[in-house]
Amino acid sequence: MRMRNKSWAKPFLIENDDFVVASPSSNKGKWNELLNSDVIHVEIGSGKGDYFCGMSKLYPEHGWIGIEKNSNVAAIAVKKALEDRRSNSLFIATDAKDINEWFCENEVDFIHLNFSDPWPKSGNRKRRLSHQNFINKYYELLKKEGCIVMKTDNKDLFEFSLLEFANTSFTLVDFSVDFRRNVHDEDTITEYESKFMELNQPIYRAIFKKH
Amino acid sequence: MRMRNKSWAKPFLIENDDFVVASPSSNKGKWNELLNSDVIHVEIGSGKGDYFCGMSKLYPEHGWIGIEKNSNVAAIAVKKALEDRRSNSLFIATDAKDINEWFCENEVDFIHLNFSDPWPKSGNRKRRLSHQNFINKYYELLKKEGCIVMKTDNKDLFEFSLLEFANTSFTLVDFSVDFRRNVHDEDTITEYESKFMELNQPIYRAIFKKH
Repeated sequence: MRMRNKSWAKPFLIENDDFVVASPSSNKGKWNELLNSDVIHVEIGSGKGDYFCGMSKLYPEHGWIGIEKNSNVAAIAVKKALEDRRSNSLFIATDAKDINEWFCENEVDFIHLNFSDPWPKSGNRKRRLSHQNFINKYYELLKKEGCIVMKTDNKDLFEFSLLEFANTSFTLVDFSVDFRRNVHDEDTITEYESKFMELNQPIYRAIFKKH
Repeated sequence: MRMRNKSWAKPFLIENDDFVVASPSSNKGKWNELLNSDVIHVEIGSGKGDYFCGMSKLYPEHGWIGIEKNSNVAAIAVKKALEDRRSNSLFIATDAKDINEWFCENEVDFIHLNFSDPWPKSGNRKRRLSHQNFINKYYELLKKEGCIVMKTDNKDLFEFSLLEFANTSFTLVDFSVDFRRNVHDEDTITEYESKFMELNQPIYRAIFKKH
C-alpha cells in the first residue's frame, strides 16, 4: 500500500519521543523494565496500528512494541495509539533490519507478523519479513519457547513462509488455513482483515516456536 | 463414504490374484523387481482408484502399488485398473496398518495420501493416515530423500497433518493452500477432486521429505 507523503509525519514522530523511541538500541536489555512486564511482544510492520492498538488493549499486562518503518503510516499508528495511551506500549518508527541491535538475545517472548507486505515479485523475496534472513534474526532475540505469530490473507506469502520456516530450528505449533471459521477471542480483527472476511476469503495463520 | 456391500467384491479380488497381491509380505524387498522399476510409489487409501490409475498411466516408468482396505471400494479400483492393465502396477486390498511387514526399510520412494478419509471425530484421530503412528511407519519404509505427497480438500485434516508432521523428522518441501490455482501437469485430477474445483473450493497440498 503506497501512501502520499505527509509533511507532518516525521515532526510528529520526533515530537512524541516519550512514546516513539528515537534510539531503540539504548533500550536494549531494558524493555521488561520500561514496559513493566515480564512478557514482551514485538510487532514488525505495524502499518496503521490497528492490530498493535487492539492487542495491547487486549493484553494490558503484557508489554507491546510496534515497529513500522514507513513514517507516513507510522504517524497514523502513533496517533491512534496516543488517543488511548497505554503504559504497556512503545513504538519504533525505524527499519527492522537492525532489530538485533535493539533487543538482547532471549529478550522477546512473541514476534507478530500481521498481514505483512507480501512483496510479490521474486526479486523482492529478501524483503519479506518471513525470509530466512529475518527468521535468523528473530531466533536470536526470542526467548526459548518464544513464538512467531503470523497471519495473512496472502496465499503466496503464506506458502513461502511455511517453506522458509521449515528450514529453520523453529517448530510449527499452530496452523490454520481458515482462521476465521472459528471465533478467536484471543486475537484482534483489524479493519483491513475484516474486508477479506466480508468477501469470504480465508485468513491463514501459523505459529512457530523456538525450542 | 459408506458403500453398500457388494457380494462380488471379495471373490473378484481373490480371482485377480495376479494383480491383487494376496500376501504382500512375501513381496517384501522384491517390489522393484516385480514392478521392473527403480522408483516405487505407494498410495494408501486408493478408494475407487482414480488417482492410482491416473498416476500409474502418467508415470509408466515408475512402479505403483495401490492399497485400499475396503474390499467394496477396492474392487471398483481393481476393475478400473484391469480395464487398462499396466505392468507397472499392483494392488493390495488389505488394511495398511501392517505396511511395515510388506516393505523393507528404505524400499519406497513416494507415499501418496490423496484425499484420505478425514476421520473428523477427535476420538478417531488415530485412524487418520497422517497420524504420528502412521508417519513413523512411513519413515521406516521410505528411502532417504523419499517423500510423502498429501492432497486434500479437508481443512481440518490438512491442519492436523501439518502439525503432526512438524513433530517428526520429515521436512516440509512443498506446500500449497490452493494447489489448483496453477496448472499441474505432473498430477492427476480425480472426479472427486474436480467437484471441489467446480465449487471453487481450495485443494490443499503438502510434500514432506525424509532426510
